Amino acid sequence: MFREKVEAFMRQFQADLCQALEQCDGGATFQSDVWEHEGGGGGDSRVIQNGDVLEKGGVNFSAVEGELSPAFLQMLQMPDPAYFATGVSVVMHPHSPRVPITHMNVRYFEAGNGQAWFGGGIDLTPIYLDMEQARAFHAQLKEVCDKHHPTYYAEFKKWADDYFYNAHRDETRGVGGIFFDRLSETHEISLEERFAFVQDVAYAFIPFYTSVINQNRDLPYGEREKQWQLLRRGRYVEFNLVYDRGTKFGLLTKGRIESILMSLPTNASWLYNFTPEPDSPEERTQAALKKDIDWLNAQ
Amino acid sequence: MFREKVEAFMRQFQADLCQALEQCDGGATFQSDVWEHEGGGGGDSRVIQNGDVLEKGGVNFSAVEGELSPAFLQMLQMPDPAYFATGVSVVMHPHSPRVPITHMNVRYFEAGNGQAWFGGGIDLTPIYLDMEQARAFHAQLKEVCDKHHPTYYAEFKKWADDYFYNAHRDETRGVGGIFFDRLSETHEISLEERFAFVQDVAYAFIPFYTSVINQNRDLPYGEREKQWQLLRRGRYVEFNLVYDRGTKFGLLTKGRIESILMSLPTNASWLYNFTPEPDSPEERTQAALKKDIDWLNAQ
Repeated sequence: MFREKVEAFMRQFQADLCQALEQCDGGATFQSDVWEHEGGGGGDSRVIQNGDVLEKGGVNFSAVEGELSPAFLQMLQMPDPAYFATGVSVVMHPHSPRVPITHMNVRYFEAGNGQAWFGGGIDLTPIYLDMEQARAFHAQLKEVCDKHHPTYYAEFKKWADDYFYNAHRDETRGVGGIFFDRLSETHEISLEERFAFVQDVAYAFIPFYTSVINQNRDLPYGEREKQWQLLRRGRYVEFNLVYDRGTKFGLLTKGRIESILMSLPTNASWLYNFTPEPDSPEERTQAALKKDIDWLNAQ
Repeated sequence: MFREKVEAFMRQFQADLCQALEQCDGGATFQSDVWEHEGGGGGDSRVIQNGDVLEKGGVNFSAVEGELSPAFLQMLQMPDPAYFATGVSVVMHPHSPRVPITHMNVRYFEAGNGQAWFGGGIDLTPIYLDMEQARAFHAQLKEVCDKHHPTYYAEFKKWADDYFYNAHRDETRGVGGIFFDRLSETHEISLEERFAFVQDVAYAFIPFYTSVINQNRDLPYGEREKQWQLLRRGRYVEFNLVYDRGTKFGLLTKGRIESILMSLPTNASWLYNFTPEPDSPEERTQAALKKDIDWLNAQ
């Protein structure tokens, strides 16, 4: 069954990603919490804390079924409440403000009426913008996308700009990435081909993020950089609690709270009316938190 | 005009509360930011930071008018988009985990069709439960309520339990208090009388909170208590960003973001799967974060 093949892939990806991140971190290992979902199925939440590089990170696998609430059905515009969902969701909060926060997610959803689709995304949230790294990040995403469809990158890059966005601050969460949802079967692209794309996205994440870690892990920083990191993490918390669909889906479907909110950092800060100094690295980073930046050609 | 009388009261209350809190704190003064609202009117956000007692606190006055968006109109079930709203909103985050976080709010709303109502509330979020203080807090709220209506306390205490509630954790924000909304004119209670009630609620807050500060400000604490405070503040952030109506109203009506989010603490923390030790003060506090506790008679 296709569903089982997808679920098996998600489990395997979780295992491979955790192994690669542990090896890269070198100081901590993932702790696993296996849990059951009340409607059926369950998950395996793997959390790493106080590593050499990673302060707090989660790689959450789940495969759950159940019935959506009427409010949620309406939100998703679906006729039948039965659903099956499987995916892997990842957030990494490094100790160092020199290493970007990252999030990635791949997911598969089946509705009761037989509709099925994939979704996913990868985005990068540098505390301090490194233009070359942002460019390389987008170039790699484009390469993966181009392998599967000529318009994927442009389409999904825009989707990420629009989605990873704190509207109340008119500020993107970071330098974006790609985001896609409801990738269904059409006459030209089969669900099997969509699956192949999602697999490529997932496995592109591993070398990309471990290489960013290795490039940046030994860069120096002090109190000032740490303070700025805590403020940026505050924005991350705002996005996740106010806008993030996965978080909302989890809260509304009575998911496991600790697994859903493992995306939040160990600590975060809010200062009233904080404004970065003119021409500082902090101000340059904040100025780059805009939609529609052509990162592939940014200077 | 009634509207102007209410607005003048709100301004005066802001001034009196700020003065009382400054005097009590002794180490810092409020900084004022006057701002304008795009639809008309504006506000005065007063923020205290790094005081002797208060780490971060805001006393926000606003009197704004405008037109509600269609989505928001539907949410409020109102026929006419024009509105006027004035109020004072208060959140105090003390340095010490021995001094409770508090929030209070009084507000007046006029809809385009001539409907008008008051709302408000006070709630207390101790980091460490002090049973005697919680009882005294509720006794004082009951006294204010009883002066105006025999069922107010029972009704508004339940409303606070239901409102200041992190549903996703089945946990109240603190020991509750009172909450009320849409107090309109009826045959037995006029809008003038409602206004008198709201005035009493507001001015009861001042001696209550300054006395809690004075009782608790010199109590000792260490790293463990500070860590627990950061985790409780994390729950405070969750409530404000996920559920708080004032925050949602502010974000949806393009309010001044720094004024809306001044309710967030300087810092907060999230640890994966944190569980307080059995029989610890932390566990006893967490166990008391339940709805429907009869605080007046709690042991």
